[in-house]
Amino acid sequence: MENSIEHKMTVKFHTIAWQGGPDGYAELIDQTLLPGEVRMLPVRDVRTMWDAIQRLQIRGAPAIGVAAGYGVVLGIQPLSDIDRIDTALSKVQEVCNYLSTSRPTAVNLFWALDRMKKKAESAGCKTTGELKEILLAEAQAIHEEDAAMCRAIGTNGAKFIHDGARALTHCNAGGLATSEYGTALAVLYAANEQGRQFSVFADETRPLLQGARLTAWELHQAQIDVTVICDNMAGHLMSRGSIDLVIVGADRIAANGDAANKIGTYSLAVLADAHKIPFYIAAPSSTFDLSIPDGTHIPIEERKPEEIACPWGVRTVPEGVNVYNPAFDVTPHTLISAIITEKGVIEKPNRKSIWNYF
Amino acid sequence: MENSIEHKMTVKFHTIAWQGGPDGYAELIDQTLLPGEVRMLPVRDVRTMWDAIQRLQIRGAPAIGVAAGYGVVLGIQPLSDIDRIDTALSKVQEVCNYLSTSRPTAVNLFWALDRMKKKAESAGCKTTGELKEILLAEAQAIHEEDAAMCRAIGTNGAKFIHDGARALTHCNAGGLATSEYGTALAVLYAANEQGRQFSVFADETRPLLQGARLTAWELHQAQIDVTVICDNMAGHLMSRGSIDLVIVGADRIAANGDAANKIGTYSLAVLADAHKIPFYIAAPSSTFDLSIPDGTHIPIEERKPEEIACPWGVRTVPEGVNVYNPAFDVTPHTLISAIITEKGVIEKPNRKSIWNYF
Repeated sequence: MENSIEHKMTVKFHTIAWQGGPDGYAELIDQTLLPGEVRMLPVRDVRTMWDAIQRLQIRGAPAIGVAAGYGVVLGIQPLSDIDRIDTALSKVQEVCNYLSTSRPTAVNLFWALDRMKKKAESAGCKTTGELKEILLAEAQAIHEEDAAMCRAIGTNGAKFIHDGARALTHCNAGGLATSEYGTALAVLYAANEQGRQFSVFADETRPLLQGARLTAWELHQAQIDVTVICDNMAGHLMSRGSIDLVIVGADRIAANGDAANKIGTYSLAVLADAHKIPFYIAAPSSTFDLSIPDGTHIPIEERKPEEIACPWGVRTVPEGVNVYNPAFDVTPHTLISAIITEKGVIEKPNRKSIWNYF
Repeated sequence: MENSIEHKMTVKFHTIAWQGGPDGYAELIDQTLLPGEVRMLPVRDVRTMWDAIQRLQIRGAPAIGVAAGYGVVLGIQPLSDIDRIDTALSKVQEVCNYLSTSRPTAVNLFWALDRMKKKAESAGCKTTGELKEILLAEAQAIHEEDAAMCRAIGTNGAKFIHDGARALTHCNAGGLATSEYGTALAVLYAANEQGRQFSVFADETRPLLQGARLTAWELHQAQIDVTVICDNMAGHLMSRGSIDLVIVGADRIAANGDAANKIGTYSLAVLADAHKIPFYIAAPSSTFDLSIPDGTHIPIEERKPEEIACPWGVRTVPEGVNVYNPAFDVTPHTLISAIITEKGVIEKPNRKSIWNYF
């Protein structure tokens, strides 16, 4: 079967889309409402896009990059096509500065805004109308490149999902975190498109439950068999022989292959190792930070205690009790069976194999 | 300092208490309201006690046993002291049958009801008034024996909590699960009474959050330094060298030392082993089921999906998605450093050392 047809069959949603020409608008799934409600949020001005990024209506590093690109297009729409080009170029700067404050730690946000600015400066447009066209094309290119990157990760990793496999994943490294398909989930979608039957266990992923809310939702949409468990149940399943592989995404990978990902990933890697279960990471090459020699140099963001202590507005931890809420942990490369990227697969990643890969 | 004075200083609540004589009433902390509200629930009839057990206002195997004993006393209060003794004895049977339906799987419930029935039958009371006195005394004996058992577990295990230790615990094996002090937490309370300074990390313990709601509450009441984490954060803390020991309770221990406890315990034991951190179980001798050769024979209760899918009435898992909710897992004896009971300590438990112990 042809991939593009199957693709439509397995991923039925668009995290973000652009409607119309340079004077059109963006539409995105409001992820704060999932899984209770699937509502498309029309985004018709740059301020609404800023809010959407800031409030996590759209989240996941690659998806934020795509949203930022479209945000710049929205930001210059108030200008008339016959406004002076230097006015338009300075407006692009202003809009990029504004959007960069929406989520100050998202690397892909800055990367996308930088790319939009450079395009505006280098394109040599004569009119504002022409600049609008050029910038929409650039935003769409960011979007398409991201989608192609996800599909390539899927294709490269699909061989690890054998028929009848029971895969475990953590957090959401899916289509909702990218423009389409995702990273770890792209591998599952690709295996599904290749006609393999398998099932997935999704850790609910405390505190923010991205696994229960987002991963389960998108796999279910794609008609892939998915079962949600609490994070503390993975070891029990492994001990019963019910898990064949673990596959997750990554937020940052050091030069030796040590990988930072959502808190809880490290525990899964230790458990997988103890049960001799392969542990895969799927991430774009841009996730590697070769300036960092190993995982001890990756800073771990601590988030506010209320995420744990007051889920859904209900206080579950007594007042006055300490709460510790690290957002990430680091899995040492020795526990990683392979890293799957859009370029290929790095088996048993270490400093040397990663050096050869780049 | 004398222990009994210190005791009052560290455990400031009574899970359950009896007020007055045979025509008095029970009082218990409504655990469904913790930690938001500390409300004593007066229990003046057997039906209210049945409800309290069934609705988990009181929970934890030993505490349920104590509640059942007082429930029998409440059950025969409607009789007059001058009613015929054979009427009273058949009322005891009826009340015990009724109470046994409150939580059909709680072993201590049946054990306590059986003990109350046997006492009623063997005491040779001449009057109903006399029987009421005898049964209150028996219920109080169950209560006191449980408290003494907890204190002995604490005394036996306190040596494992050194000054400056950072202990990790899971679920609630505390005073709220027993008449007083608990099992795993009894060890911490005893070390505290002996003047040692240490800190505790409490897993929140999904899905029902007994760690966040109950363990954190009672350790905070006792002015012991406690920090709540999500279950998926324990491995990260261990990798940073921030955990010195793990101590948990148990629901059932097989003849070879394999121990069933709240789901997530097994993962902690594997993680502790990988980080060379001692892993202790504290439980009364009655937890051993010597008819079971090893952990593979311990049935694992599966609970309803809503506990995971709809926490606090908010649906977090999409409709139609599978949920797996095992309540317990089994930790093999090879991962257990020692089992602490009211009679002593079984180091490196195995079939032989447990055989010698009993």
